[in-house]
Amino acid sequence: MKESMENIDKPLSIGVFDSGIGGLTVVKTLRSVLKDVNIVYLGDTARVPYGTKSEETIKRFAREDAAFLIEKGVDIIVVACNTASSVALSYLKKEFNHIPIFGVVEPGVNMAIQVSRSGHIGIIGTIATIKSHAHKRILNKHGIFNVYEKPCPLFVPLAEEGLTKGDIPRLIAEYYLKGIREKVDTIILGCTHYPILIDTIKEVVGDSIHLVDPAHAVAKEVKSFLEKNNLLKKSGQPTLDLYLTDIPPHYHSLLSIFLGFTPDTIEKVNLKDISSC
Amino acid sequence: MKESMENIDKPLSIGVFDSGIGGLTVVKTLRSVLKDVNIVYLGDTARVPYGTKSEETIKRFAREDAAFLIEKGVDIIVVACNTASSVALSYLKKEFNHIPIFGVVEPGVNMAIQVSRSGHIGIIGTIATIKSHAHKRILNKHGIFNVYEKPCPLFVPLAEEGLTKGDIPRLIAEYYLKGIREKVDTIILGCTHYPILIDTIKEVVGDSIHLVDPAHAVAKEVKSFLEKNNLLKKSGQPTLDLYLTDIPPHYHSLLSIFLGFTPDTIEKVNLKDISSC
Repeated sequence: MKESMENIDKPLSIGVFDSGIGGLTVVKTLRSVLKDVNIVYLGDTARVPYGTKSEETIKRFAREDAAFLIEKGVDIIVVACNTASSVALSYLKKEFNHIPIFGVVEPGVNMAIQVSRSGHIGIIGTIATIKSHAHKRILNKHGIFNVYEKPCPLFVPLAEEGLTKGDIPRLIAEYYLKGIREKVDTIILGCTHYPILIDTIKEVVGDSIHLVDPAHAVAKEVKSFLEKNNLLKKSGQPTLDLYLTDIPPHYHSLLSIFLGFTPDTIEKVNLKDISSC
Repeated sequence: MKESMENIDKPLSIGVFDSGIGGLTVVKTLRSVLKDVNIVYLGDTARVPYGTKSEETIKRFAREDAAFLIEKGVDIIVVACNTASSVALSYLKKEFNHIPIFGVVEPGVNMAIQVSRSGHIGIIGTIATIKSHAHKRILNKHGIFNVYEKPCPLFVPLAEEGLTKGDIPRLIAEYYLKGIREKVDTIILGCTHYPILIDTIKEVVGDSIHLVDPAHAVAKEVKSFLEKNNLLKKSGQPTLDLYLTDIPPHYHSLLSIFLGFTPDTIEKVNLKDISSC
């Protein structure tokens, strides 16, 4: 890892991938915490979502995503997708052991442990994320056993439709969260889409529960890693290259929901071009 | 077309594909209307849904799906997916002009024209289906111009989660349908998932509105085509071969929702194996 990262004469380039556009919430946070990095983002919008799919398929997709970013010359990779982080991170680290790879699960868990007073922690995420028990396993390793998991599959389509306020999202949030809100003092938002619904989730669970957004946690961990390894260089005007495997009909509104602006260049790519076939 | 279908000495084999498992509602209807056919079903569960994706990507996926079924030796193809039927049917007919291909859009429209008294017709479907205006174009050709279109993207995840009754689906149905229920006497359920929600949709729009399920319409058109061409043979025990591009974690409950039983064999396939690369 060290060899490939010495003597960098260009600004550091961080590759970020997600199953879709939701991971741009992580990009937004990375850009606010790390001013001097270039970011290459891949959203696998042709195959989104990952969260309802099998472990085997998610691993294959994640490998293709990481291979694409590596071909684009990134120095480190952030897996912004909670599903891919939960299911495929250790697999990716083995497959691509020459490059540092960060997931969003462990940073999110670490932050939850810091803020929780009672040690009773909830995790909400996609079906695949919850089924993997990735958060729970790490919490258990830290001696935390009062862990409450709940898949919330409707939150993703709600966020993508921009239906974030009012009776419908509130009823759905109540449907999912009524079983865990009485048991925990901290909930990890284990999906990049969920921060879009944070106001409704807050309304339903009440102010006394901490909501942990792993985007902030991973940005802090990446920053600390880069500082420790002296890898932060002035980049002048940091760039954001956005690659999508499909340009969906409503991508403009999605970009505005998740990123807050439309990047200069958006390129459609076919992952088959770089896969093994 | 005629040459390839003469002298058939084995039971007719119908290939059916859909973006996921929803198309099994069409299989269910085909099996009840046509007792003596074998069915080969492909569900592209690795890349589901299609309805939020671009025309270009949907066409590519549909071509790969049809090519897979043709390689399996099917005699005719039914595109059970409303999105693929809306966006890619004429493209598929050009690409594979040696095999009869049926979509669900035109049969659904024909049935709606038959049952509507006022000629004011609503269409609900995915974002891509509605954006294609495929139903509207055909209705316009028949001189029907009072056409009301509404994308209902949350209906698919609601059906897939089995959340088909109660306040949440009712509120969502009201949110989508309040604008069109006063204007029409017939609504086409332009997505294979929507019949799963039919009781809630009925509750919201009232008994006076006809709800057209294109599955019945396409099964009738396919039957009439096969009879006209004398293609129906006794098949003994009709078979159902099920191929999925991903075996999702919750596929057992999905099969029970959409098909009502679990077929003997379910095989996972990778469409890359048969694609052009």
